[in-house]
Amino acid sequence: MSPERFARISQLLDKRQADLTLCLESVHKNHNLAALVRTADAVGIHEVHAIWYEQALRIKRGAAVGSEKWVKVHHHNGLDPAINQLRAEGKQILVTNLSQHAVDFRTIDYTKPTAIIMGQERRGVTPEAIAAADHEIIIPMVGMAESLNVSVAAAVILYEAQRQREAAGCYQQSTVSAAERERVLFEGGHP
Amino acid sequence: MSPERFARISQLLDKRQADLTLCLESVHKNHNLAALVRTADAVGIHEVHAIWYEQALRIKRGAAVGSEKWVKVHHHNGLDPAINQLRAEGKQILVTNLSQHAVDFRTIDYTKPTAIIMGQERRGVTPEAIAAADHEIIIPMVGMAESLNVSVAAAVILYEAQRQREAAGCYQQSTVSAAERERVLFEGGHP
Ligand SMILES: C[S@@+](CC[C@H](N)C(=O)[O-])C[C@H]1O[C@@H](n2cnc3c(N)ncnc32)[C@H](O)[C@@H]1O
Ligand SMILES: C[S@@+](CC[C@H](N)C(=O)[O-])C[C@H]1O[C@@H](n2cnc3c(N)ncnc32)[C@H](O)[C@@H]1O
Repeated sequence: MSPERFARISQLLDKRQADLTLCLESVHKNHNLAALVRTADAVGIHEVHAIWYEQALRIKRGAAVGSEKWVKVHHHNGLDPAINQLRAEGKQILVTNLSQHAVDFRTIDYTKPTAIIMGQERRGVTPEAIAAADHEIIIPMVGMAESLNVSVAAAVILYEAQRQREAAGCYQQSTVSAAERERVLFEGGHP
Repeated sequence: MSPERFARISQLLDKRQADLTLCLESVHKNHNLAALVRTADAVGIHEVHAIWYEQALRIKRGAAVGSEKWVKVHHHNGLDPAINQLRAEGKQILVTNLSQHAVDFRTIDYTKPTAIIMGQERRGVTPEAIAAADHEIIIPMVGMAESLNVSVAAAVILYEAQRQREAAGCYQQSTVSAAERERVLFEGGHP
């Protein structure tokens, strides 16, 4: 690995926010997945979660997501294993939902360890995901469209998290473990 | 038209921000255009501009953009007619560009009449668009990806504009003309 590349990856790791993540519930369109992982990378997310209720979809999508080399994707066969892992990591769980019970996404404190559940393009999130979450959040809309594209919605929320974390100095301090840092530096040197 | 539908469209028009717009320079992927127009609608944009240097692309895309019924799209054959119209409307012109000269997008006052130029998926904006603009703006990124998806980038900027305009009370007051209001109410009643 060239010294420039080593420095570039080190720099990246210095800003990684291991305590911020997305959890995608059956989001299966490749262009949405690609945009989601790319935005996650841009705000310093280190890993995201993907839940697949139908194995066929999971297999179909396979590779092709681009920034996946720099944002680890954990695949889960159901909601429970994903929620259990996020809870074990001490994260608050937010679920995006177009409901009367949802609070404006900007009222949330994203400097806390946080996971944000995003729903399927057509059906949105499951009732089980809503039940498992601490808060339902919504992005205000004033037009005729009833919802935003899923990768757009995630980006709007993640850049609010980025704003809060930047102001709080979170990017001065990586939350990636030393072992994980070594793994990425090692693998990043072998394209 | 049912009284409910009339009320819904009136309500929409009450919040429309005629002095905020996007200008898309050769953005041609349908899923991006659809997401862009949907987000524009959601923050109350009344019309957007699309510049087509290659007529073939313009014709190819045709319909299928969804929220286009509620967000008028002005098509232009080149940059100049678009810029001239935006200047005649008294708008500041911002261009999104991944350059050293760009300022953080959050430093801009979006309560002013504003047009935001978004660039083509692969090549970004043209040098002519950069030259025509008042400011270059950039969304900060801390990962390995070099850019965001174009509809994601537009959404992040538009929701910063929405935040500022909400705080400034802009949504209490529509900037759509009486004639335009009538046109939309009339056409909206005929799906
Ligand atoms: C196209 S929407 C799903 C629409 C579905 N009909 C529903 O009612 O949930 C896909 C996903 O994008 C996210 N989303 C879209 N618009 C949103 C908004 N205004 N606020 C929060 N999340 C939103 C949510 O994660 C949602 O599950
Ligand atoms: C995929 S990018 C174009 C990348 C192109 N290689 C370049 O250097 O501009 C497509 C468009 O998305 C917008 N965009 C993407 N990332 C952005 C960022 N970080 N800040 C501002 N605009 C961005 C710009 O409008 C850009 O022209």
